[in-house]
Amino acid sequence: MTIFSKIIAGEIPSYKCAENEAFYAFLDINPVAVGHTLVVPKLEVDYIFDLPDDQLAAMTVFAKRVAAAIKQAYPCTKVGMAVLGLEVPHAHIHLIPLNSEGDMDFRKAKLQLSADEMAEVARRINEAFEQ
Amino acid sequence: MTIFSKIIAGEIPSYKCAENEAFYAFLDINPVAVGHTLVVPKLEVDYIFDLPDDQLAAMTVFAKRVAAAIKQAYPCTKVGMAVLGLEVPHAHIHLIPLNSEGDMDFRKAKLQLSADEMAEVARRINEAFEQ
Repeated sequence: MTIFSKIIAGEIPSYKCAENEAFYAFLDINPVAVGHTLVVPKLEVDYIFDLPDDQLAAMTVFAKRVAAAIKQAYPCTKVGMAVLGLEVPHAHIHLIPLNSEGDMDFRKAKLQLSADEMAEVARRINEAFEQ
Repeated sequence: MTIFSKIIAGEIPSYKCAENEAFYAFLDINPVAVGHTLVVPKLEVDYIFDLPDDQLAAMTVFAKRVAAAIKQAYPCTKVGMAVLGLEVPHAHIHLIPLNSEGDMDFRKAKLQLSADEMAEVARRINEAFEQ
């Protein structure tokens, strides 16, 4: 069971932003920007392109909804998307509010947000998602 | 008309990797890795999340096919995916062969490949795609 499956199951806590029957979205614990969110399939698959076509398609459409919520909660030029997948063996899409190209840089120093701040970011995204 | 629409129309040359009725894939002219490919919709839309759900879904499924061809032509751990969209106002997915996290770094020095080398990369990906 991957760490993301444990998060989805509630065995490991997360700052949840959105959920439907097939996908779960929560804050990246090491954000590169405020609002940096991960979208994961409940189906435990390592490589995103190993998802069946219909699941991959549905995951992207779900990510579009989450991206709209992020953009509403944290206005930005665009919400960028990245899939690397070399660390946790459970497919995940990074959604990152972007105002300049350098905003999507996984090697720069991560933001340090308190638990209260993280909870507030997740609350605002979730509120926008549920609208 | 964006530069990508001109590329799709053949008015500007490109190293074409794959095409179907709705999408076009060609080599990034400033690759961060050998096999770095862009997937664009023929529908001219700036922000990828402004694509209708069915088009966004189909674009991802097309990208999955192209990623499989890249991985076959240039074996790698995974093919990563990124969407930034702050430069050319025409939605595009970057597909990048990854062996380590640092392989997707848009700020590092770009590869310098000759026209012959670029043509050969595109040929190999296209051959894998058409199989």
